[in-house]
Amino acid sequence: MNSKLRIAIFGGSGYGGSELLRILLLHPNVEIEFVTANEHAGKRVSDVHRNLLGLTKLEFIKATEDLGGLNDLDCAFFALPHGQAMEIAPRLPAKVKVIDLSGDFRLSDADVFAKHYGREHSAIKAQAEFAYGLTETNREAIKPARCIANPGCFATATLLGLAPLVANNLLACRVIVDAKTGSSGSGAKPAPNTHHPQRSNSFYAYKPFTHQHVPEIEQELRRVGQWTNELVFMTHSLPVSRGIFASIYCETKNEVTAAGARDLFADFYRESFFVRLVEGSPDINWVKATNFCDIGFASLERQLVVFTAIDNLVKGAAGQAVQNMNLMFGLDETAGLMLMGTNP
Amino acid sequence: MNSKLRIAIFGGSGYGGSELLRILLLHPNVEIEFVTANEHAGKRVSDVHRNLLGLTKLEFIKATEDLGGLNDLDCAFFALPHGQAMEIAPRLPAKVKVIDLSGDFRLSDADVFAKHYGREHSAIKAQAEFAYGLTETNREAIKPARCIANPGCFATATLLGLAPLVANNLLACRVIVDAKTGSSGSGAKPAPNTHHPQRSNSFYAYKPFTHQHVPEIEQELRRVGQWTNELVFMTHSLPVSRGIFASIYCETKNEVTAAGARDLFADFYRESFFVRLVEGSPDINWVKATNFCDIGFASLERQLVVFTAIDNLVKGAAGQAVQNMNLMFGLDETAGLMLMGTNP
Amino acid sequence: MNSKLRIAIFGGSGYGGSELLRILLLHPNVEIEFVTANEHAGKRVSDVHRNLLGLTKLEFIKATEDLGGLNDLDCAFFALPHGQAMEIAPRLPAKVKVIDLSGDFRLSDADVFAKHYGREHSAIKAQAEFAYGLTETNREAIKPARCIANPGCFATATLLGLAPLVANNLLACRVIVDAKTGSSGSGAKPAPNTHHPQRSNSFYAYKPFTHQHVPEIEQELRRVGQWTNELVFMTHSLPVSRGIFASIYCETKNEVTAAGARDLFADFYRESFFVRLVEGSPDINWVKATNFCDIGFASLERQLVVFTAIDNLVKGAAGQAVQNMNLMFGLDETAGLMLMGTNP
Amino acid sequence: MNSKLRIAIFGGSGYGGSELLRILLLHPNVEIEFVTANEHAGKRVSDVHRNLLGLTKLEFIKATEDLGGLNDLDCAFFALPHGQAMEIAPRLPAKVKVIDLSGDFRLSDADVFAKHYGREHSAIKAQAEFAYGLTETNREAIKPARCIANPGCFATATLLGLAPLVANNLLACRVIVDAKTGSSGSGAKPAPNTHHPQRSNSFYAYKPFTHQHVPEIEQELRRVGQWTNELVFMTHSLPVSRGIFASIYCETKNEVTAAGARDLFADFYRESFFVRLVEGSPDINWVKATNFCDIGFASLERQLVVFTAIDNLVKGAAGQAVQNMNLMFGLDETAGLMLMGTNP
Repeated sequence: MNSKLRIAIFGGSGYGGSELLRILLLHPNVEIEFVTANEHAGKRVSDVHRNLLGLTKLEFIKATEDLGGLNDLDCAFFALPHGQAMEIAPRLPAKVKVIDLSGDFRLSDADVFAKHYGREHSAIKAQAEFAYGLTETNREAIKPARCIANPGCFATATLLGLAPLVANNLLACRVIVDAKTGSSGSGAKPAPNTHHPQRSNSFYAYKPFTHQHVPEIEQELRRVGQWTNELVFMTHSLPVSRGIFASIYCETKNEVTAAGARDLFADFYRESFFVRLVEGSPDINWVKATNFCDIGFASLERQLVVFTAIDNLVKGAAGQAVQNMNLMFGLDETAGLMLMGTNP
Repeated sequence: MNSKLRIAIFGGSGYGGSELLRILLLHPNVEIEFVTANEHAGKRVSDVHRNLLGLTKLEFIKATEDLGGLNDLDCAFFALPHGQAMEIAPRLPAKVKVIDLSGDFRLSDADVFAKHYGREHSAIKAQAEFAYGLTETNREAIKPARCIANPGCFATATLLGLAPLVANNLLACRVIVDAKTGSSGSGAKPAPNTHHPQRSNSFYAYKPFTHQHVPEIEQELRRVGQWTNELVFMTHSLPVSRGIFASIYCETKNEVTAAGARDLFADFYRESFFVRLVEGSPDINWVKATNFCDIGFASLERQLVVFTAIDNLVKGAAGQAVQNMNLMFGLDETAGLMLMGTNP
Repeated sequence: MNSKLRIAIFGGSGYGGSELLRILLLHPNVEIEFVTANEHAGKRVSDVHRNLLGLTKLEFIKATEDLGGLNDLDCAFFALPHGQAMEIAPRLPAKVKVIDLSGDFRLSDADVFAKHYGREHSAIKAQAEFAYGLTETNREAIKPARCIANPGCFATATLLGLAPLVANNLLACRVIVDAKTGSSGSGAKPAPNTHHPQRSNSFYAYKPFTHQHVPEIEQELRRVGQWTNELVFMTHSLPVSRGIFASIYCETKNEVTAAGARDLFADFYRESFFVRLVEGSPDINWVKATNFCDIGFASLERQLVVFTAIDNLVKGAAGQAVQNMNLMFGLDETAGLMLMGTNP
Repeated sequence: MNSKLRIAIFGGSGYGGSELLRILLLHPNVEIEFVTANEHAGKRVSDVHRNLLGLTKLEFIKATEDLGGLNDLDCAFFALPHGQAMEIAPRLPAKVKVIDLSGDFRLSDADVFAKHYGREHSAIKAQAEFAYGLTETNREAIKPARCIANPGCFATATLLGLAPLVANNLLACRVIVDAKTGSSGSGAKPAPNTHHPQRSNSFYAYKPFTHQHVPEIEQELRRVGQWTNELVFMTHSLPVSRGIFASIYCETKNEVTAAGARDLFADFYRESFFVRLVEGSPDINWVKATNFCDIGFASLERQLVVFTAIDNLVKGAAGQAVQNMNLMFGLDETAGLMLMGTNP
């Protein structure tokens, strides 16, 4: 490629925007044209994301009203609160590719959206243009897509653990997903559930059965295979900053050993650099700040448990968004994403 | 009662012993005669448990060989590593009551013990004298017992969440327990899995399906009701010091709502001060350092999820041991156990 | 004493109030008449402080306007934000004793107050009635006092480490206090500096030289001895919930060894149960949730370093307040304050 | 450069080795020839450092006895426990450059070494060949050097905060350094002081006045300027995995404002990409996993406080080692070191 992709970030002050900036600033094929943050307009990016001091001179701007005039952009990322991308993204020039990290364009059914997000969808026609951006299950649809609905963090961790089993039609009856997330999943805005004095010694469940990622999980599972099972989905809060761990309890139609599951997953993910199959259990410690999804297995007769671990802000958000951008522009899928984890 | 109970602690240097000391030093009806810790014999207790500085002048001693001569004791607590209490406890005078915090006397089947603890049982006859010390389900057997096998921490959190359902024969098919523990569950001895640089950012599963608390859970459930279900039991490690949280996934024979479950539990635990039923999810933060088990519920049609939270070292070990002692000696069940939690 | 003290808590929803409740609910000589929290009026106390579930049926009330009518009270605690106690406390009947945990009545100089608290003092005459409530240095003034200005948390940790040295006139030139606090020191209200995703990996300095506890430290040091030294006071934020650790760097007029300092402190605090002198360094882990102040020493020629550790919410706030109440009412200083720390 | 540098790592199983691997595996100008770890010989590197799974197929080997035969190497890193590099490094071929992360070659005085490291130096002649590797203060000596003694982590944080002041001869009397480190500073081997149940709620001081980094700090300060001041150096343990924060209390000969200090430092570090001057206090959160040293200032008359924050394993160890390698081989100083921090 002769020149760098010109990209923009709408919503650069939250954690999704923060991680997009961290990744894209060093991406060899990208140049950031602008990054918006209405409440921080005029401030230096590195005044808000102090990790970036010395690494960028970018300043936040207000989003322009003249979205149609943004003809110079190759790609726009949206890392805005739910409900905002659907107001803005459809007004961009048709040549600008779009990657939305919010939940606005993930669900094809407007009623399901309204039920789970508590608002009417204002751009459900535009939604039809969006490919679901779980890279590993939807690569061929992502490559030619103009618009991507980037998956939710819990959805990513769950789907990567279930897709190979559903695609091979191995699951009997209900599936139980016991998922746990770090506090950054609640966003950059202080709130009682992320108040350090309490959160640092807490573990609790929340949104039982009703997390808004459930419908996108089921929608994608139906696309991947014949999903007619019952899904029990339970989210919990972990006292760490980053990371999602999902324990996925399956009952298989016939016995599938841990080793057998591993072989099956290895085959399903044979072209997927960012899926790593581990011995025993994965650990959020080994994926933090990286784009990897680590997967492990345990089995006992027809009980198969799949464990997945991701960084909620990287593979669960900004990293996967860039992975999708790479595919959409014919780049190597790993470009700019060789983010090494650390020990410890 | 005219005089104080004379008690001894065998194994006072670990976390079980540490918590027994914390509780018993202030117990109004107890006097600690001695506390053993072979490797620390001669040291002041407060040199090892520095929280106790200024609160006791006790020194650790080596356990005497003349166990039969300990006629002055009323009660002996054992907080030794698995396999040691079964060598010592049977040699105590018959008048000394025994409360063992290890796994030595929990299982009535020697083969099951050998399989899960990796050693032959050397005192299986003595085991018959032990009542299982889950206070809330076995109170009437505990009161007259001479010997108590104090439950495991995971077993406590699991059984308190399942007993009312099993006693009322409400459960269909398999039950899945996704349990998480703080690092103190691994004991006071440093090890790779409790090395702070790694553990502080970790969450992972371990001992899938095979945790040694499984057989005692099933043994007690069979006693409480008609337990013929399949139990999928999965343990995970949390990056906090203290606390166990269990998410217990049930499928009920008929629909049981969260409110209905709450009523059922309220009735089952109507005399149980240390069981608290909460709105929504419990949180380990609210039970830390206390003897409470907090329980909450969520339901969707025939899916019922019970959440339980305890402090693994208190209700899951030393606190429950003292609760049992109180019952055995006719004291108020809460004597010495009004350990207040804190906010934050 | 024939009957229990009737006490009230003004401001029960914050962490100071939370800890007052935890302690006073079990205090053998106290009955809580009411606890106010305007924004939570009508709610059960245990809905806000969920640790107290099952331990109290108290509900929060709004503070009455008819303060003068509160004749039945023996003692009122104030755990309100700075600036509120000075509006309310002076209006109570003269027979009601007052213990204020805020900064309102600590400083005798209205100008100094205005400078450090950013508001004019509205009751500086009433201030003259307040004894400074650092129990260990001011016991004889506290016993007969009607009103107590309870010290700040940093002031407590600093003064307990400096008072014996100042009283004995041992210090040359400047003293540097490098103090570190847990996140609960910022209060119960979520804020950017206590947002868990960031705070859990943070350590930083704040309010250099200008912390509002500086003037009360110097005021009390001048009372204790001949304090004319320069005080460099620096506060830092620790990624734990509770605890203050102060490293106090002194240069002594003549060489004072660590052992010599220890003897001096032992003498100075010979009647002070809650001061514990430790070998080597104290550790906030050993004082958490207790009313102890642990103190250790290191020396090299004329350099003497005093290390102090307290729980900011107990000895640094609610615990010391109750300690003062005990003195004021002729109770044992430790009544209700045998709060055991834990290991771990 | 036509071809990649062939490097070796002696001691790849600890945290220093772990971080060298993380950095060097992606360094564009480096190829790792081998990495030793005697106790793990034959194991895959990614079995020990599970963050590296999928990123390397390297296996650990035992260090060869035929060190003189290692003619193909360009550079050898030593990340071994103190006392081992001095046995091995001098036996390498003279053409192999050496970077030692241990304390073996930092001190030019054998007696001082013996006193602080508790062993005789076996290669003090070889020590003369070593340049002290604090890149920012010693760049011109590092470039042509064959051997580098990489600074200690505390020494790095302290020296970067003091060097500009000493070089400009601004300091009067004693300097007090209150330094705090995360638990990874204690290495990868579990020990009581890094046992998670306790460490996660701890803060305490250790090695008062006597930390082994003191002599290298003073040795380098004497080289940088006229250092005759007294240094009070105090180390503390933080309950985080990574990071060092130093609060450096200076008294200046004449008043130096925070702004003035900042200008002075900006000038001193004008060519130093990895030193970042911040407003207010730095925070270890903003430098974690990076090679940056963030520096801030506070002042009051002649009291100047310098705050520095680094990641102890990167700028305090492996990152600085690679920075030095870059200089020694004529590479850009930042090659392979654009390690971005994260928010959160």
